[in-house]
Amino acid sequence: MALSGSLLRVFRTHLRGAARQHVRTHSVAILGAPFSKGQKRRGVEHGPKAIRDAGLVERLSSLEYPVHDYGDLNFQHLDKDEPFMHVPFPRTVGRANQLLSSAVSRAVGAGHTCIMLGGDHSLAIGSVEGHAQQCPDLCLIWVDAHADINTPLTSPSGNLHGQSVAFLLKELRGKMPEIPGFSWMKPFLSSTDLVYIGLRDVDPGEYYILKNLGIQCFTMRDIDRMGIHRVMEVTLDHLLARKQKPIHLSFDIDAFDPSLAPATGTPVNGGLTYREGIYITEEIHNTGLLSAMDVVEVNPVLGANREAVKATAGLAVDVIASSLGQTREGTHMAFQEIPSPKVDTEKLCL
Amino acid sequence: MALSGSLLRVFRTHLRGAARQHVRTHSVAILGAPFSKGQKRRGVEHGPKAIRDAGLVERLSSLEYPVHDYGDLNFQHLDKDEPFMHVPFPRTVGRANQLLSSAVSRAVGAGHTCIMLGGDHSLAIGSVEGHAQQCPDLCLIWVDAHADINTPLTSPSGNLHGQSVAFLLKELRGKMPEIPGFSWMKPFLSSTDLVYIGLRDVDPGEYYILKNLGIQCFTMRDIDRMGIHRVMEVTLDHLLARKQKPIHLSFDIDAFDPSLAPATGTPVNGGLTYREGIYITEEIHNTGLLSAMDVVEVNPVLGANREAVKATAGLAVDVIASSLGQTREGTHMAFQEIPSPKVDTEKLCL
Amino acid sequence: MALSGSLLRVFRTHLRGAARQHVRTHSVAILGAPFSKGQKRRGVEHGPKAIRDAGLVERLSSLEYPVHDYGDLNFQHLDKDEPFMHVPFPRTVGRANQLLSSAVSRAVGAGHTCIMLGGDHSLAIGSVEGHAQQCPDLCLIWVDAHADINTPLTSPSGNLHGQSVAFLLKELRGKMPEIPGFSWMKPFLSSTDLVYIGLRDVDPGEYYILKNLGIQCFTMRDIDRMGIHRVMEVTLDHLLARKQKPIHLSFDIDAFDPSLAPATGTPVNGGLTYREGIYITEEIHNTGLLSAMDVVEVNPVLGANREAVKATAGLAVDVIASSLGQTREGTHMAFQEIPSPKVDTEKLCL
Repeated sequence: MALSGSLLRVFRTHLRGAARQHVRTHSVAILGAPFSKGQKRRGVEHGPKAIRDAGLVERLSSLEYPVHDYGDLNFQHLDKDEPFMHVPFPRTVGRANQLLSSAVSRAVGAGHTCIMLGGDHSLAIGSVEGHAQQCPDLCLIWVDAHADINTPLTSPSGNLHGQSVAFLLKELRGKMPEIPGFSWMKPFLSSTDLVYIGLRDVDPGEYYILKNLGIQCFTMRDIDRMGIHRVMEVTLDHLLARKQKPIHLSFDIDAFDPSLAPATGTPVNGGLTYREGIYITEEIHNTGLLSAMDVVEVNPVLGANREAVKATAGLAVDVIASSLGQTREGTHMAFQEIPSPKVDTEKLCL
Repeated sequence: MALSGSLLRVFRTHLRGAARQHVRTHSVAILGAPFSKGQKRRGVEHGPKAIRDAGLVERLSSLEYPVHDYGDLNFQHLDKDEPFMHVPFPRTVGRANQLLSSAVSRAVGAGHTCIMLGGDHSLAIGSVEGHAQQCPDLCLIWVDAHADINTPLTSPSGNLHGQSVAFLLKELRGKMPEIPGFSWMKPFLSSTDLVYIGLRDVDPGEYYILKNLGIQCFTMRDIDRMGIHRVMEVTLDHLLARKQKPIHLSFDIDAFDPSLAPATGTPVNGGLTYREGIYITEEIHNTGLLSAMDVVEVNPVLGANREAVKATAGLAVDVIASSLGQTREGTHMAFQEIPSPKVDTEKLCL
Repeated sequence: MALSGSLLRVFRTHLRGAARQHVRTHSVAILGAPFSKGQKRRGVEHGPKAIRDAGLVERLSSLEYPVHDYGDLNFQHLDKDEPFMHVPFPRTVGRANQLLSSAVSRAVGAGHTCIMLGGDHSLAIGSVEGHAQQCPDLCLIWVDAHADINTPLTSPSGNLHGQSVAFLLKELRGKMPEIPGFSWMKPFLSSTDLVYIGLRDVDPGEYYILKNLGIQCFTMRDIDRMGIHRVMEVTLDHLLARKQKPIHLSFDIDAFDPSLAPATGTPVNGGLTYREGIYITEEIHNTGLLSAMDVVEVNPVLGANREAVKATAGLAVDVIASSLGQTREGTHMAFQEIPSPKVDTEKLCL
């Protein structure tokens, strides 16, 4: 409270110096999560393959990280899985997230920055939970057209990919019924450690929850008003000004405009531009605090043609690469000086 | 003059509180105006059908307004209608606007917010005139790639859809010849009660008139410089700071970029983004003062294919819905508290 | 140092008044440069034809400049032209640029604003050099996705279209080997007289050179942060605040987003919007100091279809027209007063 914004920023930058050192040594773990039972449209289980086919591993390798692709998790569809209220597949979704949680926890525990490729956004439950096992003080940046914060009691559709955040928040503990399949976990995240970016289709119950808990949200209207530069400044101040915390970035590809990411289940007009999406991830990378990341809802079955699928999956690769340090300004690692012809010709030019 | 901008804003917000109460009780009237004689390309008379087919009524109903669709007006093409100077169909355009004026006046008089679906933009003459019969102190926001402020003496084409504003302005009284078909009306609008947004193709005579009368214009270049947020702030301060006035919004779909609204007669590159268009209408809705609105120049015949027509008409629906209160942030009408499982499960979840 | 930014601006505006007088009298010379040996993809030699077919001369004529189209230069492919290191066609590129340099020098010397239509971006070597023969104090604005500032010792590809700026800069004199074909020229430009706009794909050696020389660059990230309005303010202050200098604008069409300019050899996602490109050129025109301009890398062979080629070439025409004074706000040359019907009808309306 006593420090001004700019003083805080200097202070944070100083702290980041140390943090970045640590994160720079991280290697990257890729976890495929071919799962679709958090919603009703088929195809999103092919997301991990589409993102890999778009060249993910090659791209990350060019960033000179050690990249470990752990392949796809093996999820099971449970035979006996009656709906709970109007929520379909509760036990199947719960079990999948339990499995994912363990895998993410192991990857982060082994020192990797963990990249989870969805699959639908219900998978964020397990991904954030597993991350929190290793980093209990994490904060969460949720980039999405939707808030995914319905409870079973407010959800119009019942789909669990629209309820993920409600499972995580301590403040909603008394508001969530006991859903079968989720007894393995307890809510652990404080609503002050969560920021939304990109919202533009918010259900009435979600709106009420967001306002009631005072959650920091940047809708597309806010981005129109403030600009993405200022939105990221406030986001990072809100989450990190008091304490440097590991960041979990949960990125739903439908945050982008449908003209850029058409192959997804619930597109909404008026989304992020390519440059806004890249700017968000550049800023998160620059904190040096990114510790785990989800990229979800790439659904290759829903693209109108091959180009649409390729564009959507390519965007997912760009978002991941930018989160991990690919820049638009270039980097100078390779050079210590401008080579001079007389001295260097033979040495440098094979 | 003595009040600072921010003080004025507080003051206005206070006044708006009351106004909004009133407007919130409004119902909506839809008037179809299938008319195309204000310009030379056929097809724009099918605009009302295209906009309705894109789901207008269903969308507005979801906003919980009473919606009255009065169907299409029945315009007549006059057989004896020689050009006046190089202006084609003056009597046909005059008669159509006289009919429209009565219909708009009746709708506004009956307490509706009146939505006129064009048709070409010459229809704004009758729409604004009819609105002014009920609300003589109205102000006018003209969102368009073009200024539509030529007189017959400055117009390169002669088309009346490029001259609508010149019929309305008191300051141009001595500059307009007596055009057959328009003896039923007199200019009534002061040029200080008019703001343009989106201009990017302005004829030399129009440029001279705009500068000479000192009309507040925001060209695309101004939007590039100031941002749409600031443009709307200045627009609303300019029109409403001294007095809360009913707003007439006249929205030409060609204000949008042709990549978004291809099915229109005079597209010009470099237009509004989807988000800018929605921001404009959100801000106008938030004044609580919108009293009548035109959406014009959707021409289904000019789309390259079905998708192009659907996109353009869907955009018209989005613009109308946003003007009438559809939000990107959500609304909480439906909830007074976050439902708790033990208390509410049976009650809320059927 | 002692003058504040706004004082400097007033001062500059004052100075510009005089300069603009001078530039306003300029006629325009068009030079076609059908050349492609600065890179490896065929087709860019058809750029001049594509840009002319998109209506360049007609458009410029409507601006009421005298327009002289000098047709295409006649470049020769040299038979004996072994690679230098990994740089292909050094003598052919050198000779072409020598020819172009003379032609540009003659055109500028004759009082024309010179518009060079590429061809690949290696042609900027000759174009800027020829311009500098007449205007030794010129400054250079380079709008491009790429920095084109590799030396043969840093270039990953060897292509000369990625090395043009390195030939121009005095500061890189000792870093450039003696490349066959270029003995006719010497570097002449100070790195303080150069600004980049639009960068987003910068090689490691380029990044090092840019930082080492302290060159003023605005990457797409900078545009995202500052907005194009502020970028242009800083650009023009940087180049012109101390002294009014003739401007050379070297515009690579790949500065635009690939969705707008698909028919080009090295497209990179996340480029300039149409409106940003037009804003840049409007601001340059408004200085009154534009003296020569390149538009390069339109490659009609690489468009997926006719529409893609037409869009890319049309964009080139828009950029040139806007640089030469086409406005989005209109101009009033044609009118000294609003014509009145009684007095003017017969006189004005044929």
